[in-house]
Amino acid sequence: MIKKTTIRDLAQAAGVSVTTVSQILNGKGQRFSSETRLHVLKLQKELNYVPDFNARNLILKSSQSIGVLVPNIGNPFFSTFIKGIQTTARELQYIPLIFGANHDEKIESYYLEKMIERATGGLIIASASITTETIDTTLKKNGIPYLLMDQNPIVDGDRVQTNDFDGGKLAAEHLLSLGHQQFAITMPSEPTANLLRRVAGFKQVLASKGLVFEQVVTIVYAPMTKAGGYEATREVLASGATAVFAINDEMAIGLYRGLRQQGILIPTDISVIGYDNIDLDEYVEPMLTTIQQPILEMGSMATRLLVNRIKEPLIAPQVVDLPVELIQRQSTGVPKIN
Amino acid sequence: MIKKTTIRDLAQAAGVSVTTVSQILNGKGQRFSSETRLHVLKLQKELNYVPDFNARNLILKSSQSIGVLVPNIGNPFFSTFIKGIQTTARELQYIPLIFGANHDEKIESYYLEKMIERATGGLIIASASITTETIDTTLKKNGIPYLLMDQNPIVDGDRVQTNDFDGGKLAAEHLLSLGHQQFAITMPSEPTANLLRRVAGFKQVLASKGLVFEQVVTIVYAPMTKAGGYEATREVLASGATAVFAINDEMAIGLYRGLRQQGILIPTDISVIGYDNIDLDEYVEPMLTTIQQPILEMGSMATRLLVNRIKEPLIAPQVVDLPVELIQRQSTGVPKIN
Repeated sequence: MIKKTTIRDLAQAAGVSVTTVSQILNGKGQRFSSETRLHVLKLQKELNYVPDFNARNLILKSSQSIGVLVPNIGNPFFSTFIKGIQTTARELQYIPLIFGANHDEKIESYYLEKMIERATGGLIIASASITTETIDTTLKKNGIPYLLMDQNPIVDGDRVQTNDFDGGKLAAEHLLSLGHQQFAITMPSEPTANLLRRVAGFKQVLASKGLVFEQVVTIVYAPMTKAGGYEATREVLASGATAVFAINDEMAIGLYRGLRQQGILIPTDISVIGYDNIDLDEYVEPMLTTIQQPILEMGSMATRLLVNRIKEPLIAPQVVDLPVELIQRQSTGVPKIN
Repeated sequence: MIKKTTIRDLAQAAGVSVTTVSQILNGKGQRFSSETRLHVLKLQKELNYVPDFNARNLILKSSQSIGVLVPNIGNPFFSTFIKGIQTTARELQYIPLIFGANHDEKIESYYLEKMIERATGGLIIASASITTETIDTTLKKNGIPYLLMDQNPIVDGDRVQTNDFDGGKLAAEHLLSLGHQQFAITMPSEPTANLLRRVAGFKQVLASKGLVFEQVVTIVYAPMTKAGGYEATREVLASGATAVFAINDEMAIGLYRGLRQQGILIPTDISVIGYDNIDLDEYVEPMLTTIQQPILEMGSMATRLLVNRIKEPLIAPQVVDLPVELIQRQSTGVPKIN
């Protein structure tokens, strides 16, 4: 087997001690002559010495990495969110370690444990199934900085959130302004806290117009995926709704397929509004009306706040609210007159 | 700040040495009584001691993690590939660390360096921009096990590949059998080795029918994304092709949008065939005919081969070829008679 160049090899070649090499490579070699420093750095390059992270980590007491736990790497929302994290992490010289749990709570717990074992500098948790107990016993107890995204119901600590209540309001206002009076909402049967806020916002707007949510809205439960939206089609059609609020864009795009197969035209026969504004929305026919979340910015902001926390553990809780916006495209229109 | 429970705290509580605790927790405590072992494990739970990975790693000399470098985490092909890796890695008790480089070669090099620093147990590289020089000077020299996916042109070492040549042949045979005689191929201007094999397979089939590739095929260069496929629309239409081979499904879906805006019907006016078989193919209208790659299996197999290599560094090179298949849906048909 080929032997990896060690710090000892490098020290020997440079004719200095291992400690000297270590201090120079870690940017703490000010007390050595610039000649010695340049000599060591030149040899490092020649010998192609890559510092062993695990050893170095014990010296620096900072892993310079952040763990990121997302429910599903395949959802365009989360892949965009991760891009935001990667860009900002690189700028701040942190390495994001990405863990996607495929919506499996057991895998989430397993990954969380592994992230902590690796002494990750801090965690961004965009997963709803991490409980208060886990936070208390595992993260707080071990003094691990963390930041929760708004999928998580825990309101403690640093947090990046978008205004889901406003998002639900915007959806309802838009559909009401077009003249709709009967609605369906597609959402998972065990909704996360942020999804419930979307529904609450929707409900408040209906109430302000004298409409009783339970009388004019049918909730159709299905997974938050394209397949889930497709599966919801029959119940949506049976509900008599003239407009559907899909709780995310993936569901809306699944619903498109189901409606198309039934010969139902969007928006002529039924209006559909989604949530997220993923890039796919402009590629489907008709282009999807949706509520935009600033997804890249959410990733970027989460990274900044977490790094703040890693560097200054004692600062006050940081909570950032990012705005949402209605993006009106072609999938919503006036209701059909029967 | 809250203090993290250390191995010293645990040893003290258990009334044994740190070495004893370390050996017991690492499953090497056979020489101690089962009473001592159970006592330590019970206290570990009570005190909620999580072994520090960086320290433990130096002891075990195996990081039990594998680094995964993909060009773009947002491409459904790679998110599915990553799912395959995650599932198998978990089964084999390895942790995949995912690095997505957003098609930026500088970021790829940066991440590669960071993965090596972390003494990752091994690497899966699904990125084309890692050169022979990097492999030689960085990976081989440091004795780091690695596996290349077929985007990469280097033929050395372990490898998981699909038969891209066959894929190109299947696409050409399908379009010829429908009666097409003029084609466009959309692909990036700096194609990776596997894409060139798809084109070569396409060309061979044309040649076998007496058709000269350069006379009957227009190559339209654009990025391998939805936006790239959309951008390619004008040149595709100008080419006079009656059938388009999009080098991946994302490009095909982008092309759908461009064609729709021009009032061109698929497959009535023009046929489109993609490559990959991502789940979106069944949600677009018309459903996309494509060449299927066994994406999940590719991720799973890559993980198995890499772990084999980590465990037995001296075994012969492992090369696995996975088959591809034509999935005929609704986006291809007979050419229009003018």
